[in-house]
Amino acid sequence: MAAIYPVVLCGGSGTRLWPRSRARAPKPFLPLVAESTLFEATLARCADRARFAAPVVVTGVGHRTHVEAQAAAFPGTRVIVEPMARNTAAAIALAAHRLPAEAVMLVCPSDHHIADVAAFQAAALAAARLAQDDWLVSFGITPTGPETGFGYIRRGAPLDGGFQVERFVEKPDRATAEAFLADGRYSWNGGIFVFKAGTFLDELARHRPKLAAAAGEAVAKGHEDGSAFHPDAGAFAAIEPESVDYAVMENTTRAAVVPVAMGWSDIGNWQALRDARDGDEAGNRTRGAVELVDCRNVLAETDGPRISVIGLEDVAIVVDGDEVLVTTMAGAQKVGKLSGAVNQ
Amino acid sequence: MAAIYPVVLCGGSGTRLWPRSRARAPKPFLPLVAESTLFEATLARCADRARFAAPVVVTGVGHRTHVEAQAAAFPGTRVIVEPMARNTAAAIALAAHRLPAEAVMLVCPSDHHIADVAAFQAAALAAARLAQDDWLVSFGITPTGPETGFGYIRRGAPLDGGFQVERFVEKPDRATAEAFLADGRYSWNGGIFVFKAGTFLDELARHRPKLAAAAGEAVAKGHEDGSAFHPDAGAFAAIEPESVDYAVMENTTRAAVVPVAMGWSDIGNWQALRDARDGDEAGNRTRGAVELVDCRNVLAETDGPRISVIGLEDVAIVVDGDEVLVTTMAGAQKVGKLSGAVNQ
Repeated sequence: MAAIYPVVLCGGSGTRLWPRSRARAPKPFLPLVAESTLFEATLARCADRARFAAPVVVTGVGHRTHVEAQAAAFPGTRVIVEPMARNTAAAIALAAHRLPAEAVMLVCPSDHHIADVAAFQAAALAAARLAQDDWLVSFGITPTGPETGFGYIRRGAPLDGGFQVERFVEKPDRATAEAFLADGRYSWNGGIFVFKAGTFLDELARHRPKLAAAAGEAVAKGHEDGSAFHPDAGAFAAIEPESVDYAVMENTTRAAVVPVAMGWSDIGNWQALRDARDGDEAGNRTRGAVELVDCRNVLAETDGPRISVIGLEDVAIVVDGDEVLVTTMAGAQKVGKLSGAVNQ
Repeated sequence: MAAIYPVVLCGGSGTRLWPRSRARAPKPFLPLVAESTLFEATLARCADRARFAAPVVVTGVGHRTHVEAQAAAFPGTRVIVEPMARNTAAAIALAAHRLPAEAVMLVCPSDHHIADVAAFQAAALAAARLAQDDWLVSFGITPTGPETGFGYIRRGAPLDGGFQVERFVEKPDRATAEAFLADGRYSWNGGIFVFKAGTFLDELARHRPKLAAAAGEAVAKGHEDGSAFHPDAGAFAAIEPESVDYAVMENTTRAAVVPVAMGWSDIGNWQALRDARDGDEAGNRTRGAVELVDCRNVLAETDGPRISVIGLEDVAIVVDGDEVLVTTMAGAQKVGKLSGAVNQ
């Protein structure tokens, strides 16, 4: 089978892992789970050149320095520098236009964690086979709980190595999420997609003709700069921002899903990061100078001052330069609304 | 009535308010509850020269600089510098030897908080009247809960303005403390004493003749140094350290108690400090750059970095230079055992 082209979307940094993740040091470029960064791990998962072509990274002006520094260990990486953010449909369109029409793209976020790389690679291969038959494939993450923070995908008729998508479902409420989990036919939509570049562009032109035309024009009028490609800013700016889910996946009749259990996490907040890291026998995760007494399932990390903790459970404590965050795991979803996170 | 001589014992710093209280910045000299330090507030409570003579401060070599700096606002303060710590019986004996035999001493720790100064002063006057009749008087703090961290005093027959002491009781267990509270005749022993210098020295000589003799020799062989007095180190070093409770109060037949409710706290840990401070409507106490979200009864203070907290209750968070402490109020009693507190 022909090589799969990894397309890594390296966009906004978010604020939910503040104060470790900051405007100047965004989430994808931090060694949050392991010693390598989430972005480096994303590239490493697709580094086997027998199966994967060199990656294409779509990123913004602000992230380019980080991308180029961390991609240096992955020769042949090509970078597309968006002049401004226009959401995932446009980002993927740029990459698709820069690849052969027959190229099978594996579109991945740059800031997710995947514990089981072999399962990821097996799913990529299965999805690529479907993509060659002109399916637009979503990875369907096997749910591990009734999460209300993700969209869901309901599988339909079986295909060879996957299923047709019966429907995409918006983020559910708790009761609905529990019903999905019990049902067994629902997966999380993890934002990982596999399709041929030409198939994607055809579907985009069918469902979002203006977006498709503008992306095409931005590439046609763009210019090279070493290993980086710069789409035309004027044409790109005209694009209405829309996610690939809304613009294409929910509209196409060729949507497929490949279910996969691969220890996936979007590391969406401090609780998710705590859970993605290995803990000690009391479930604690520490980095830097930390002393814990009578603590359970505590995440404590510091880039300098010592942290001493007594008697806490399910709490995250993060010291980063001039900021100290202390939050319950249940409160972690509110981190992005703190003054410090908002006014960076 | 003759003036009362305040004798302020300004000894060890303790580790239970680490990391704010440190070897280099001990508890009495910090503005923990209000803008003035505990030591300054102790002197200010006895600053009315119509009722109180200028104070005598008994302190150690390590604290002398702090004492002299903060006592500068209280003219006439005399300092006795102990060459080494020998507990409270010896410290009080030094002060007693430096005062007239008829002088009524009001012996106070330097690191307690008293919210109701008028109640304190009224109790001091009542105790001084008893002292003039050769009673050795303890302040009996009216209990506000079944505390197991204090000694208790059981009152006996009534006196004019107080009671004879029936007995002193060691720190009780919880059930005993609850029985004491229900009984109504028990007070906390807050370490505040009133007696004539001569009466105290007579009783000390009766019950601890060696200690009394060594203290007398240390003063006789001591020397002046400006406003400071230095007992002889050799004589003082020979003293067996003992508390005034063990050496004198529990042995004398002339022990009396003056019950008083005065908003007293020994500020013995972060929970006690939290309780001594005024809180906002959610019971939170903050100092410095702090943002609290969904928090109740949290103490958060910082000397620099911002603290952001979500979802916590009854927790203390203290940032001091290179140390960050996070403890439940229930765990606050273990602060002194943390590596940072032990290895200062």
